[in-house]
Amino acid sequence: MNIPVSNQNKTCFLSSQKSVSDLQNQVLSYAIELINRKSITPDDGGCHTWLIAKLEQLGFTCTEINSQGVKNFIARYGTKGKTIAFAGHTDVVPPGDLTRWQSNPFVATISNDTLTGRGAADMKTGIAAMLSATKRILSTKEIDHQLIWLITSDEEGEAEFGTKVLKQYIDEQGIALDYCIVGEPTATKRTGDTIKVGRRGSLSCEISIQGKQGHVAYPQYASNALHLANKVIQSLVSLTWDHGSDDFPGTSLQITHIDSGRFTDNIIPGQCSVNFNIRYSAAYCQTSLEKLITHTVTSVDDSAKLSFSRPCLPYLTNKTHGHCLIKLAEQAIYHQTGTFPVLSTSGGTSDGRFISDNYTQVIELGVPNKTIHQVNESIQIEDLVSLEAIYYDLLNRLTP
Amino acid sequence: MNIPVSNQNKTCFLSSQKSVSDLQNQVLSYAIELINRKSITPDDGGCHTWLIAKLEQLGFTCTEINSQGVKNFIARYGTKGKTIAFAGHTDVVPPGDLTRWQSNPFVATISNDTLTGRGAADMKTGIAAMLSATKRILSTKEIDHQLIWLITSDEEGEAEFGTKVLKQYIDEQGIALDYCIVGEPTATKRTGDTIKVGRRGSLSCEISIQGKQGHVAYPQYASNALHLANKVIQSLVSLTWDHGSDDFPGTSLQITHIDSGRFTDNIIPGQCSVNFNIRYSAAYCQTSLEKLITHTVTSVDDSAKLSFSRPCLPYLTNKTHGHCLIKLAEQAIYHQTGTFPVLSTSGGTSDGRFISDNYTQVIELGVPNKTIHQVNESIQIEDLVSLEAIYYDLLNRLTP
Repeated sequence: MNIPVSNQNKTCFLSSQKSVSDLQNQVLSYAIELINRKSITPDDGGCHTWLIAKLEQLGFTCTEINSQGVKNFIARYGTKGKTIAFAGHTDVVPPGDLTRWQSNPFVATISNDTLTGRGAADMKTGIAAMLSATKRILSTKEIDHQLIWLITSDEEGEAEFGTKVLKQYIDEQGIALDYCIVGEPTATKRTGDTIKVGRRGSLSCEISIQGKQGHVAYPQYASNALHLANKVIQSLVSLTWDHGSDDFPGTSLQITHIDSGRFTDNIIPGQCSVNFNIRYSAAYCQTSLEKLITHTVTSVDDSAKLSFSRPCLPYLTNKTHGHCLIKLAEQAIYHQTGTFPVLSTSGGTSDGRFISDNYTQVIELGVPNKTIHQVNESIQIEDLVSLEAIYYDLLNRLTP
Repeated sequence: MNIPVSNQNKTCFLSSQKSVSDLQNQVLSYAIELINRKSITPDDGGCHTWLIAKLEQLGFTCTEINSQGVKNFIARYGTKGKTIAFAGHTDVVPPGDLTRWQSNPFVATISNDTLTGRGAADMKTGIAAMLSATKRILSTKEIDHQLIWLITSDEEGEAEFGTKVLKQYIDEQGIALDYCIVGEPTATKRTGDTIKVGRRGSLSCEISIQGKQGHVAYPQYASNALHLANKVIQSLVSLTWDHGSDDFPGTSLQITHIDSGRFTDNIIPGQCSVNFNIRYSAAYCQTSLEKLITHTVTSVDDSAKLSFSRPCLPYLTNKTHGHCLIKLAEQAIYHQTGTFPVLSTSGGTSDGRFISDNYTQVIELGVPNKTIHQVNESIQIEDLVSLEAIYYDLLNRLTP
């Protein structure tokens, strides 16, 4: 492990009594501890044991809720007042081509004020900042609110047995979250420049189309599955979707694959499959979409077989709440960085979809994401320090 | 080799002085000689040497015209009068799964009045019948016409260096054919029930469509090659073609393959290829079709790249000629079998397309084709004897 070196030249709007270098050392050491624990989905690599010990030292009560080989835990502090949650994942994607890494991806490395390692952006630094900010807030004031942590080691995979299971658990326990901050890397250039306030839903589908194989010279005895597929696709791409709003990009359907089997120049293909994916706004729900798609396809080809998969629900947090998480986050970010964030709902899906409901306000707020899932994943150390400061500031505002 | 057994119970309308069994033995022995010479495309397996020797014995002058490893020859008898040609191929398709053959495919076998072996239908029996009928006509009358044979060992393959080359040669030599009988298997149940008087043309094409790959969540930054392909295909399958006539089945375009590369659920494919084949009537020519297709495709996607391949020209012989080959063949068939043939232009392509021109009348007339290209390829011996009789009868009518 490299020993972090503080950089006294950095400009940070830290509203803490601790010195900049002490704070930097603390959050950086946490990030290093996590990166050095190799935790490729769904393996937590020992991160949870380490985290639970740290949280228990702060007075949290932790409960492990493991499911289907996935390790999850919930940590609780306090029993009354508003419920303020941090959510995140300890698992990382595989490192890819090791020869292209400048250093071992599972040994955190610091060089030129940059922290490198798998998870440096997505999202072990997010968890390190949560832990440091939580420790700081508990050491500086009495909290009349509940703090909750929802941590999984299955976000980068199918995510079927991770945060979804944790949310089911807290629902069963009657725990309603007022606010939830997901520590995903959401920034484009600098921490705080962009936060996510929602995500579109996603739904995949494979259509199996059955025709009748035959010789191209005798089309009257055959039924061309690709001609039928053309009509089906035409009906799908002709569907009119919402064009989006200030909150959401529009809904979009994209054909992702066509497989008509082995090619023979004089054979009319007798069957084919068509795959597509829909990214959809809150104007739709999974059920309404499946109904619309099934109706559209079977109106063209009543023998087509549809198989839906990988459903991801959309979510959207808006600013209409009385005590608005988004507004408080904007204020904290402005206070710590001097600029207001862009509110975004773009990009793929996130675990925010499992937590968001009519009651819970969810935002995603984290470090820059430009190196995630790449070799030499890294962030600038000042982006980590800045995130810790924003989290601390936000916790302060949420616990008046 | 099995010794053929004559079947005295068969009813044949043989208009020859020879006995039924002598004739049957002659044509059958020729077929056996050819089948026993293994000649998978483009290898003639020694068939040409044997055939040339036989034809030279009858007074023919033979010229070998080999091209690109393909063996072809032309045989000529006489120098004046009408020019009557037989055309055919000595090559056969591979035997396929040998374990499914009842006997060695390259050793002719006779059992229950059935001749089995690769080429028994397509088309070594056709050549045997030509040879026997030619021998018979030359032994029974003085011929004031020219007899021509055009034989190739490359019909089942790409056919680029076979009959096409022979036709170029006779054109260069100033030899114009009045009549040409191609010995392809054209019958459905019994020899003479169907003859081909033309074939549709064929043209294949591959379209390369270029879009821009991207993530399904950001369609605004991508261009989906499959969506573009769908518009292109839509324009192609929407083309209005002729519906055919008494002479020809209609023109037909069939999409035969779509390849969009490897499937990834969240990737918008950036390129794809679309293959199709057109079977077309004499209402079109290759040039007009290529122009129409290119215009249609590039009107939708001006960056699409088209690559045409495997062009086969259509041909059609009609009954408007003064001394009509079709009518004479109908009469010969009726005289030998008691029924008139169906005139057809259906099915794939044949070498008839290379021989047919504004001057030359071409028909295809042969044994039943229901076992061609299959294991245990076979015909009834009476279908072979019947073909020999029809050829002899037709030669008689063509040489009044």
